Amino acid sequence: LSGWCQRLAQLDRDDPLAAFRDRFVLPEGIVYLDGNSLGALPRATADAVAAVVRAQWGQDLITSWNRHDWIGLPGRVAAALAPLLGAGPHEVAVCDSISVNLFKLLAAALALRPHRHVILAERRNFPTDLYVAQGLQELMGGRVRLRLVDRADELTAALDADTAVLMLTHVDYRTGAVHDMAGLTAAAHAAGALALWDLAHSAGALPLDLRGCAADLAVGCGYKYLNGGPGAPAFLFVAERHLRAARQPIAGWMGHARPFDFVPGYEPARGVARFQAGTPPILSLAALEVGVRLMGEADMRQVRAKSMAMGEAFLALAAERLAGHGFTPACPAEARQRGSQVSLAHPQGYAIMQALIAQGVIGDFRAPDILRFGFAPLYNRYEDVRIAVEALRRVMASGSWADPAFQVRGKVT
Amino acid sequence: LSGWCQRLAQLDRDDPLAAFRDRFVLPEGIVYLDGNSLGALPRATADAVAAVVRAQWGQDLITSWNRHDWIGLPGRVAAALAPLLGAGPHEVAVCDSISVNLFKLLAAALALRPHRHVILAERRNFPTDLYVAQGLQELMGGRVRLRLVDRADELTAALDADTAVLMLTHVDYRTGAVHDMAGLTAAAHAAGALALWDLAHSAGALPLDLRGCAADLAVGCGYKYLNGGPGAPAFLFVAERHLRAARQPIAGWMGHARPFDFVPGYEPARGVARFQAGTPPILSLAALEVGVRLMGEADMRQVRAKSMAMGEAFLALAAERLAGHGFTPACPAEARQRGSQVSLAHPQGYAIMQALIAQGVIGDFRAPDILRFGFAPLYNRYEDVRIAVEALRRVMASGSWADPAFQVRGKVT
Repeated sequence: LSGWCQRLAQLDRDDPLAAFRDRFVLPEGIVYLDGNSLGALPRATADAVAAVVRAQWGQDLITSWNRHDWIGLPGRVAAALAPLLGAGPHEVAVCDSISVNLFKLLAAALALRPHRHVILAERRNFPTDLYVAQGLQELMGGRVRLRLVDRADELTAALDADTAVLMLTHVDYRTGAVHDMAGLTAAAHAAGALALWDLAHSAGALPLDLRGCAADLAVGCGYKYLNGGPGAPAFLFVAERHLRAARQPIAGWMGHARPFDFVPGYEPARGVARFQAGTPPILSLAALEVGVRLMGEADMRQVRAKSMAMGEAFLALAAERLAGHGFTPACPAEARQRGSQVSLAHPQGYAIMQALIAQGVIGDFRAPDILRFGFAPLYNRYEDVRIAVEALRRVMASGSWADPAFQVRGKVT
Repeated sequence: LSGWCQRLAQLDRDDPLAAFRDRFVLPEGIVYLDGNSLGALPRATADAVAAVVRAQWGQDLITSWNRHDWIGLPGRVAAALAPLLGAGPHEVAVCDSISVNLFKLLAAALALRPHRHVILAERRNFPTDLYVAQGLQELMGGRVRLRLVDRADELTAALDADTAVLMLTHVDYRTGAVHDMAGLTAAAHAAGALALWDLAHSAGALPLDLRGCAADLAVGCGYKYLNGGPGAPAFLFVAERHLRAARQPIAGWMGHARPFDFVPGYEPARGVARFQAGTPPILSLAALEVGVRLMGEADMRQVRAKSMAMGEAFLALAAERLAGHGFTPACPAEARQRGSQVSLAHPQGYAIMQALIAQGVIGDFRAPDILRFGFAPLYNRYEDVRIAVEALRRVMASGSWADPAFQVRGKVT
């Protein structure tokens, strides 16, 4: 173990991202490996939100929409986010939740492929994506059908002349497995379909190149690796080539070409602004802006390199220190095939994770048996890997996980 | 004028709501009559939001979903709001924007009336409601049609066997005219249709009785009279009798019966929770909670009485002090037929409102020619009426509105 100690300490000393850690508020004595559920609080966020509340809303009231350009805030956050996605600023909108944005984009995709009716996806996808597709299917009757495959290697064969859109999550939320975005997008295109990517576990975690991959559509999350705060607004991407023709059904006033003309007829705004719907939530957007700009300061290649190295260290250390305790790796062995997380399976995974959290190491559990550890290279240290694995070893060696208190399922697991 | 001075000062001294004013942050020297666009900042909000950011998100991170019951926050705000709507706590959800919620409820209404396809509405409705209906129409092809009437007195005759839902805004955003909710709901029901009410300018402004009026569906706004902050989450209401059958199409995970089981098939939650979609925006909800609870402390009959008295005083004083300056009342003459606002029409309305704002009196302008003054009885004083009318008199007497700077249309008007 002392070899590991020295090696990880050296990696921390050499870490080009080390200075970012001070830009976050992190509770004393906690190792936080759950930034893929809720990113940590950037140090600048509290003041930024307080300024919007006290100085802008409190003092300038309604005039803040112009004076502090609240009306431009969604567009500013989108423009700051675009480089992290490999997208143009005019291809990204920040609004609503992933669920609502997926609904818009699935409907848009089906309208762009009017003679096709199938949404093709994986059964193991994060469920909300499947639910949204099912909701659209129920609304549209026979005009939309969600088709699920059980294994990723069945996707290409399942693409056919009925497929309107291939809807995939880039990084699997349980295993961390990364899809080949360029390859699967090309396969979708070869079949005449569009490709829609859910970037919930990708944005702020991996370098992304939506344009280079020729992706058609994408959605993603503000509150995970972008550190935008609980329930932060989500984002969506529509490739420039579709912006003229794409229409979305939730035709709210913020997507209108001239919302303040108050005319009774809907006319979609030019470009991606038409994917906005209602009035934007300014407080939540102000928090998201801080997280996105902070992430934008980092070199995403360095972020990815550190995240891969942390994953390698975690799996190697776990193999050494947790042997015989019944864990099985539940993520790809190759770092390049994993997102910014590692996953271990264990039949008692739920209770073990609760016991580990009681030790001050926060990861999370995903049914049925996955312990998930996310790496946020801007605030996690290499040292966190050792602390986490050693805490897990103590939980297993002491049997503390068998405490009945750790078996009780909370509302949010 | 001195008679008015004394009368209004006496009304302020006798005002049973006067103590509420100290519960708000109000900028020095400003008279704010635009609480119907963006309500003022409750004094408690900044600390409440800061606690969520610093103590909860910052220190307890992901565990806050359980530890601080973030997962229950939408339901808590909904339960606090329900009495203000005359609804049961299990009939209200707080989520998304009005636009998104209208989309859900219009789709739900059409599914509840499967052999009907018409959404009946007024052309003068706040446009986003019409846009959302048009978006649904475009998505659903011939299965949905938005039918508009030009005058309110045409509504009843237009209800027929094709009408699935009568969609009305309770208080007109330009004129403040109040619809007879009970009467029009009964007319919709007599024709076999549902009634959907937009309460954007009603919630927190008038006593509401959705149950007593037998309303079927409603939506409303958190950032106007409920003082929830810019872009605060909106709310929706579904009458208990429809909760079992009503389905909505944006089937996100927060509307699932067991979201944390992560099963691939959507199963709607029991009751109104199925109208949730994505992860709730916790910062914005925390601000809204303060506004809703503060409004809940007030007696809505006192709120309404003060609001009507302020409107009466404003119109009487305007008739006296602004005579000959070209203003025409653009709201109902009877206080009971007005919401919590008065409106004056003037061909130079835009520039006059800009000049008035420069005098420290904030109302707003609505195209084509409406100056709108909203009364928020929790923080407005009777004295504000006199200050506003006198400022308007100075603007007209001095001709300051003719300054070219006041002719330039801002992005948000």
